[in-house]
Amino acid sequence: TKHFRNAQLLSFAVKRTTNFFYTSINEIMRIVLRTISSSTPQKVVRAACRRVIVMRHGERVDDLFPAWIQKSCMSGAYRAYDLNMPLVLPQLDRPMAHFEDDTVLTEMGTVLAQMVGRGLLINKTLPDVVYTSPALRCVQTASFALKAAGYDEHVKIRIEPALFENITLYPGGQPKFATLAQLAAADFNVDIDYKPIMTIDKLWSQPESIEEYGDRVQKTLLQIAERVETSTNPYGPILMVVGHASTLDLAVGAFREHIRRSTRTELLNIGLFYPFCATTVFDRSMAHQWSYSENALPPITYRNFTSKINSRFAFRERIE
Amino acid sequence: TKHFRNAQLLSFAVKRTTNFFYTSINEIMRIVLRTISSSTPQKVVRAACRRVIVMRHGERVDDLFPAWIQKSCMSGAYRAYDLNMPLVLPQLDRPMAHFEDDTVLTEMGTVLAQMVGRGLLINKTLPDVVYTSPALRCVQTASFALKAAGYDEHVKIRIEPALFENITLYPGGQPKFATLAQLAAADFNVDIDYKPIMTIDKLWSQPESIEEYGDRVQKTLLQIAERVETSTNPYGPILMVVGHASTLDLAVGAFREHIRRSTRTELLNIGLFYPFCATTVFDRSMAHQWSYSENALPPITYRNFTSKINSRFAFRERIE
Repeated sequence: TKHFRNAQLLSFAVKRTTNFFYTSINEIMRIVLRTISSSTPQKVVRAACRRVIVMRHGERVDDLFPAWIQKSCMSGAYRAYDLNMPLVLPQLDRPMAHFEDDTVLTEMGTVLAQMVGRGLLINKTLPDVVYTSPALRCVQTASFALKAAGYDEHVKIRIEPALFENITLYPGGQPKFATLAQLAAADFNVDIDYKPIMTIDKLWSQPESIEEYGDRVQKTLLQIAERVETSTNPYGPILMVVGHASTLDLAVGAFREHIRRSTRTELLNIGLFYPFCATTVFDRSMAHQWSYSENALPPITYRNFTSKINSRFAFRERIE
Repeated sequence: TKHFRNAQLLSFAVKRTTNFFYTSINEIMRIVLRTISSSTPQKVVRAACRRVIVMRHGERVDDLFPAWIQKSCMSGAYRAYDLNMPLVLPQLDRPMAHFEDDTVLTEMGTVLAQMVGRGLLINKTLPDVVYTSPALRCVQTASFALKAAGYDEHVKIRIEPALFENITLYPGGQPKFATLAQLAAADFNVDIDYKPIMTIDKLWSQPESIEEYGDRVQKTLLQIAERVETSTNPYGPILMVVGHASTLDLAVGAFREHIRRSTRTELLNIGLFYPFCATTVFDRSMAHQWSYSENALPPITYRNFTSKINSRFAFRERIE
């Protein structure tokens, strides 16, 4: 509590500007983007997706800072007590307690998401369509990646509850997710007209086994990949899905000739195999076969961290 | 090499803007700073330093990416092959080979330095005087921290070769450090009028034992702390020194009643005890005694990383 004496002042200043800290990537990227788009003919294609990028959300505050809500609100209003905590929380009009089961990204999580956005731009694979799990950390990750690429105004984020992780991970019941209206008011470019495959209430209407969870996500992924979308990319639309570590493993199992399921044991420590902001990319061939595209995006490596997935685990053989 | 096809385009765009990526902290911080300074009477004090902040440089590229110079220059010009590598190198007018023994910060290293800058600002302990080792990673760290605090135009960085790490770590001989003119041209706010305690050539004029190295740094730290400086801070000037992991251990040993030296064995893996961008802060009492100030700056914690020093090691007892 000795720290951040000036937090109120700062919080005031931040509100006056923006709560997206590292925006200057934008300035650079917008120039690149303009250069790229001006050199590309804007012919519009309508087709099912030809590439699917599945990404895990970034580092979460509750993972690093146990009891962060209590500790940061000692003096009433939220105050960061570590420089990796956001100085201000997303301006969602909801009680602090709602962050309990619906955490936010750390500052490093934000930077990691921005780096992925930079990678999408540099490797010319910006998505035409973006879906996220309703978890705030996933919506933030998608938003920061798109903003870093200067592309957030081009794509509205579709919130899809059918992409949320297994509800058995939430013994306290349904988290209080932000509503579309709250997200929109907090400057997230969400698609308020999107009709989800499943509502949040429907998701919580009955217990769900691990097998049912896997089925739900794999079906959802395959279904949204078949939807006809619009793109100016001559090769067809690019789809991005921001979800959980398990979403990536289920995607690897879904986008192949024969579906492979993930077992309960495999999903137990799935985060170890698919790090924060890891990406998996799948391309559809002319013959409508999916294949894994290992080098579609550059890796992110820092001390004790790589965004690379554990391929040995992801591409495990299984006798079913 | 499949990655970053657009690197040339990007590099062009970056040159047109800036090579400081996460500048938007600046916008926020500048407002805070204006608010802070306008509410503080600008009375000038001239005195010896009353606080010394000793900081280690951020994450270095060569530590994560072996043979990064060769690998990134396969096609002639420098191209990043990981999103944690800088997209463009500091615009120093010197051959790539000079980065071999004088490496640059990674992107995460830059962000970490910026976070420390944010901490300096929030905790109202911005330095009046800044010294760095001549190593580029140290100059960059100081510069990014000051820029993030919106304070870089207020403080000229003094490059002090007497703060460089032990020369025996460089069996290949004297690294080709950037000159003051090169640094100034690359937008580092260096003090071109500063007369260093020791020139680089002098430093390399004779072999140096571990004991001599420790003496050199501890003497330098104590000497610069006694210099009379100007400050608008009523409590007296604040000094910041950006150096190496060993600099922090030697500082802990110097700013106390009786000097404690660091042994060869202790300095061997000193980086384990003083992480990247770790800070140690020392305050001088009215009675001119130095004491360690543990909570002067907020920590930075992320997955598998803390900027906190290992206090058990730093404050070890020793029978001499």
